[in-house]
Amino acid sequence: MMKSSLNLVPFVSVDNMMRLVLHVGVDRALTDIAAEIEADFRRWPLFDKTPRVASHSDVGVIELMPTSDGQMYGFKYVNGHPKNMKEGLQTVTAFGLLADVNTGYPVLLTEMTILTALRTAAMSAVAAKWLAPKGAATMAMIGNGAQAEFQALAFKAICGITEVRLYDIDPVATRKCAANLAGSGLKVVSCTSAEEAILGAQIITTVTADKQNATILTDNMVGSGVHINAVGGDCPGKTELHGDILLRSDIFVEYPPQTRIEGEIQQLDPDYPVKELWQVITGQIDGRADQKAITLFDSVGFAIEDFSALRYVLKQLKTLPKSLRLSEDLDMIADPDEPRDLYGMLLRKKAAMAA
Amino acid sequence: MMKSSLNLVPFVSVDNMMRLVLHVGVDRALTDIAAEIEADFRRWPLFDKTPRVASHSDVGVIELMPTSDGQMYGFKYVNGHPKNMKEGLQTVTAFGLLADVNTGYPVLLTEMTILTALRTAAMSAVAAKWLAPKGAATMAMIGNGAQAEFQALAFKAICGITEVRLYDIDPVATRKCAANLAGSGLKVVSCTSAEEAILGAQIITTVTADKQNATILTDNMVGSGVHINAVGGDCPGKTELHGDILLRSDIFVEYPPQTRIEGEIQQLDPDYPVKELWQVITGQIDGRADQKAITLFDSVGFAIEDFSALRYVLKQLKTLPKSLRLSEDLDMIADPDEPRDLYGMLLRKKAAMAA
Repeated sequence: MMKSSLNLVPFVSVDNMMRLVLHVGVDRALTDIAAEIEADFRRWPLFDKTPRVASHSDVGVIELMPTSDGQMYGFKYVNGHPKNMKEGLQTVTAFGLLADVNTGYPVLLTEMTILTALRTAAMSAVAAKWLAPKGAATMAMIGNGAQAEFQALAFKAICGITEVRLYDIDPVATRKCAANLAGSGLKVVSCTSAEEAILGAQIITTVTADKQNATILTDNMVGSGVHINAVGGDCPGKTELHGDILLRSDIFVEYPPQTRIEGEIQQLDPDYPVKELWQVITGQIDGRADQKAITLFDSVGFAIEDFSALRYVLKQLKTLPKSLRLSEDLDMIADPDEPRDLYGMLLRKKAAMAA
Repeated sequence: MMKSSLNLVPFVSVDNMMRLVLHVGVDRALTDIAAEIEADFRRWPLFDKTPRVASHSDVGVIELMPTSDGQMYGFKYVNGHPKNMKEGLQTVTAFGLLADVNTGYPVLLTEMTILTALRTAAMSAVAAKWLAPKGAATMAMIGNGAQAEFQALAFKAICGITEVRLYDIDPVATRKCAANLAGSGLKVVSCTSAEEAILGAQIITTVTADKQNATILTDNMVGSGVHINAVGGDCPGKTELHGDILLRSDIFVEYPPQTRIEGEIQQLDPDYPVKELWQVITGQIDGRADQKAITLFDSVGFAIEDFSALRYVLKQLKTLPKSLRLSEDLDMIADPDEPRDLYGMLLRKKAAMAA
């Protein structure tokens, strides 16, 4: 049976995603994804929005994150299993799909573990671009796991950060991160405490993985004029900041109905005022009030960011040379000669196999 | 980079799904999937249940249908675009995934267009097995599109139906269906009206595709002692039966919160009493009251049925000879040597490409 190309779905494997990102360059990929996210945040009201659909177990969570802009539909499958790391597995793995709203047919299937790392970092940097104090050049990074290097590189490429100060409760993670960032152009300082890491930092990124209400930052550690990029607190019962910090901060979020369930603000009253980042980007509301304010981006990751990243990948497949072979064709959609004759397709296959 | 087999996801393409089904035999596949569905309905309370997450547009719908039994997690992506048929495309296409709840890692990706056709038919036959009048041997089938042959074969294999009476507003569809069922062992009667089709039928299956409130069956067409298998009414604004038929019927559904949105009963008050099929199967409630009752299975398709079908496919992959090569391995999950070193995996790939 010949498949028409219409019914083959391009699939980007992990290996091909690495080749794509390396071909483009990590800094450039981060910058381009950030631009896609910003463009989609500008047309925020246009999207279908729903809190992600989560299936929780004792050891982790599996989530589906769908959205649509009316032309394209996208969703991501993503898990979060902090205990995986000790078993040699990824804490977070993901894949995603884009489909044509007009036909319902998928047009792209791709790994999204690497892509999620890129888009999460790009999202953080976009928020900081709008919220961090002017001239911020030093970032503390507490939590030096799988997301850390991507955060550092995104803040360098998009926000002009020149120094990162690393801390992790596990020094092995800090060594790994510092080694990977050698030669990146960033000044990298490895620290032995969170207090040391935040010395002189205008931006504090928290990106730890424990599924518990942790206190990575206490209130007395955070001075004025700081932007906090809180990445790790992203599901019910998993937070990183002491509640008192939240009360001193101007809090910016992606999609409030989801963040109130999953973000740092799960610690606050359900009607505690928060601001929506997209409205800062469109100019409807102010971002940072003044140089002394504490801004907090309570990041949990929203479906629209994945949509932006998926469209970025599809664009690359269409514009990069075909000779790079960055995707494979998957025979994923049944394609009978006559659409109502699905069973006939089986019968013809049977005849062909017998012949 | 060598991938460990743990991080490769078996993928069943459309072509391989056809080969799997033909290897097992369509009747046997339907019977086995029906048994899986029945087994899962017996442990219904154990599952995570949520109405499917639908994204509607003017021309169709894209849905995600997740569920979990605590050990495995499954979801299906499925679209419904009635206008596709005129463009030579499938009205319904689908794919699905199973994952291990303990790690969040996918363990199976598969086409589900064919698989959904099988599980929908198997589900209908399971319901009829519990609800249809004793000795039912003749089924009317109104709507002779892609789902029709599967329904006929499931009712033959699981309920002992010996005659199907076909009607479709498009005689081309009826001819296609009759031709495909020649040699199936069923007596096939092609009819020129719905009234003619239901003559002498103890089971009436409606399986049409128009996205509108249609009236495939009017009240005066349905006599006593009949089981109605209403398959086509499955999203908001898409129904097949006149409301008066519903009022005369004992109505059985899969998952009430979803059926009230999508099924025939969207025509009724939101608290109109309906019965849950799983409770009939477990013996908690009665099915058919007597031979004169009208039973109605208001089928919309629920995630647990897809879960059953997905597990069926995974079982086949594990038990059928490997030499059949019914799946391919997809490089879908990032697999760094050290789980926290996702960025390092990129760096090593870069070094390998430069070498």
